[in-house]
Amino acid sequence: MYRIAVLPGDGIGKEVTKGAVNILQAIGDRFGHTFHFSYGLIGGEAIDREGTPLPEQTLHLCKQSDAVLLGAVGGPKWDNNPPHVRPEKGLLQIRKEMNLFANIRPVTFYESLAASSPLKPHVIEGADFVIVRELTGGLYFGKPSGRRIEKGEEAVVDTLFYKRAEIERIITFAFTLAQKRKKKVTSVDKANVLESSRMWREVAEQVAKRFPDVQLEHMLVDNAAMQLVRSPKQFDVIVTENMFGDILSDEASMLTGSLGMLPSASLSVDGPALYEPIHGSAPDIAGQNKANPLATILSAAMMLRLSFGLTEEADIVERAVKQVLDAGYRTADIAKHGDCVLSTTEMVEKVKDAI
Amino acid sequence: MYRIAVLPGDGIGKEVTKGAVNILQAIGDRFGHTFHFSYGLIGGEAIDREGTPLPEQTLHLCKQSDAVLLGAVGGPKWDNNPPHVRPEKGLLQIRKEMNLFANIRPVTFYESLAASSPLKPHVIEGADFVIVRELTGGLYFGKPSGRRIEKGEEAVVDTLFYKRAEIERIITFAFTLAQKRKKKVTSVDKANVLESSRMWREVAEQVAKRFPDVQLEHMLVDNAAMQLVRSPKQFDVIVTENMFGDILSDEASMLTGSLGMLPSASLSVDGPALYEPIHGSAPDIAGQNKANPLATILSAAMMLRLSFGLTEEADIVERAVKQVLDAGYRTADIAKHGDCVLSTTEMVEKVKDAI
Ligand SMILES: CC(C)[C@H](C(=O)O)[C@@H](O)C(=O)O
Ligand SMILES: CC(C)[C@H](C(=O)O)[C@@H](O)C(=O)O
Repeated sequence: MYRIAVLPGDGIGKEVTKGAVNILQAIGDRFGHTFHFSYGLIGGEAIDREGTPLPEQTLHLCKQSDAVLLGAVGGPKWDNNPPHVRPEKGLLQIRKEMNLFANIRPVTFYESLAASSPLKPHVIEGADFVIVRELTGGLYFGKPSGRRIEKGEEAVVDTLFYKRAEIERIITFAFTLAQKRKKKVTSVDKANVLESSRMWREVAEQVAKRFPDVQLEHMLVDNAAMQLVRSPKQFDVIVTENMFGDILSDEASMLTGSLGMLPSASLSVDGPALYEPIHGSAPDIAGQNKANPLATILSAAMMLRLSFGLTEEADIVERAVKQVLDAGYRTADIAKHGDCVLSTTEMVEKVKDAI
Repeated sequence: MYRIAVLPGDGIGKEVTKGAVNILQAIGDRFGHTFHFSYGLIGGEAIDREGTPLPEQTLHLCKQSDAVLLGAVGGPKWDNNPPHVRPEKGLLQIRKEMNLFANIRPVTFYESLAASSPLKPHVIEGADFVIVRELTGGLYFGKPSGRRIEKGEEAVVDTLFYKRAEIERIITFAFTLAQKRKKKVTSVDKANVLESSRMWREVAEQVAKRFPDVQLEHMLVDNAAMQLVRSPKQFDVIVTENMFGDILSDEASMLTGSLGMLPSASLSVDGPALYEPIHGSAPDIAGQNKANPLATILSAAMMLRLSFGLTEEADIVERAVKQVLDAGYRTADIAKHGDCVLSTTEMVEKVKDAI
């Protein structure tokens, strides 16, 4: 039996997690696995009901589970809340509390989606890389972070902080991953300006010595933002700081034409992992049965593979998604002129049929 | 008489500034202006000759001039130098010392370059926006920035710091610019995570009240990185923090197919302004007469318009560049299969002929 904590969150989070749970159940039926789903509150809904974006019982539930499936958090309703009662705080807290230091965001080219990408086909054809984003440190978590008076003037500060060991951990993770792939690590930093990046680069060099079969390349973050659009095929594993990874992975989603296609896994050293689509709660289309459930379904596939070791099952889900796209089925975000647009639930059914 | 300080810097910096000086001279001849050029050292060459990336006399020269034209700094030779004797430090110092708080990076679509962009023509056709990057604060300059021991462990820190007045100054600048353009400001931040971004957003709202004819929109930086690729036509003026602006403007250069096309101006409150291409020193092609001089020539055009008020002259340079591109002339970076590739000096001659 596999215990899965499901945190639907806000907006389309509910619709897409429902779809993914559906798919996991189909996999369970076919392979004789029992997935047990328990639901928890997070984000805006948790604020409304419990007064906090990450209630104690949600965290407890997650820690007791074998894996966590998360939808998305946030919405205009809570945008003007004070920092500690904002939906996003729940997400940041769960990452920190569960020690989810490694966020893996695979970027895969789908032949059949080439038309919905803003990039030219020859640029993206065959692109296949993974962004490894450090998730529990960097500019997101450093202290101090807040307002202050500086020489009589109002001012504000955020802090990019890393222990050397944190940098080493994430870079080692990236090298281990690259060893199973195309054996190339692109370490992205801003070493010509930031001290933290200079340590990052130094650590990358050291770690590289332990992986003689993996090629290490350094790239400045501004250049990386350009290269992702210019020639994404050059990448295998990209490893970078939290804030840089946030920016670069959203940008990279444009290879597939939609944020609605990109899954992610957030891993800890030895606790349960968390799986979530990289898209947000999309308040504008929430509750309309329009959202693309594929990123969350692909996140569930990552769960099968990485948390449960169910490789065949994961492959089947990923192949089903590909098959459905090849057959021309599209949700609105990836549809082009003339396509027949499916609803969220219809898309989920199509994937289920393909399993 | 206009006094121009020229700081060629390293790598292709020398070749491209030479080209731009040439064009300015042509403009001077045609319109009867006298441009007086004085040369200063900066970056790697300054380190080699003077032991510091920004010698005192260079700074003095710049402050005594009406405007500064800079090439580019940096190269592998100095990459392992300690932080304070790195070429980039010279650039950061001159920005700080001359109080160049507003970096303006216009992104223009050239019909004739559509083929060399990795983006599909319908995505970029007609795109025309300006990135206003805060240049003397933010993550680049905050203190502390350095290594430390934290609870017995090696650690490192960088700081994103702003005084409220600094944020207000750059946002006001962006609104003033938008008023003369399409009357829309997109303020880019990460207000769902960073305290500095929350103040940024607050200040943007306040400044907006003084510009009722300009529309203000907030966009998260991860989303902005995506939208720049997905639908760049939506933008008019983008205003953002130093580090964010660095990343987004390099990314945006892909609209024109090459970093070699994008000029920039860095303005202070009342001192001389600095003009530089946004590309780097490109050590791999330095000294080979291959570099694209157009970004620097377009930077010189910005100088004519913004520092000297020579609008007609600036228009003529910009039109000449467009004309040369329309005629099919290309340097290697923007050439596609079958194009006849020009050298740096040949390209400069073509622009000169068109003036
Ligand atoms: C919602 C937000 C706090 C989050 C982040 O910035 O990490 C999101 O953008 C993501 O990438 O998962
Ligand atoms: C060379 C480097 C310090 C510089 C920066 O990061 O500002 C460059 O990338 C730029 O954008 O002008």
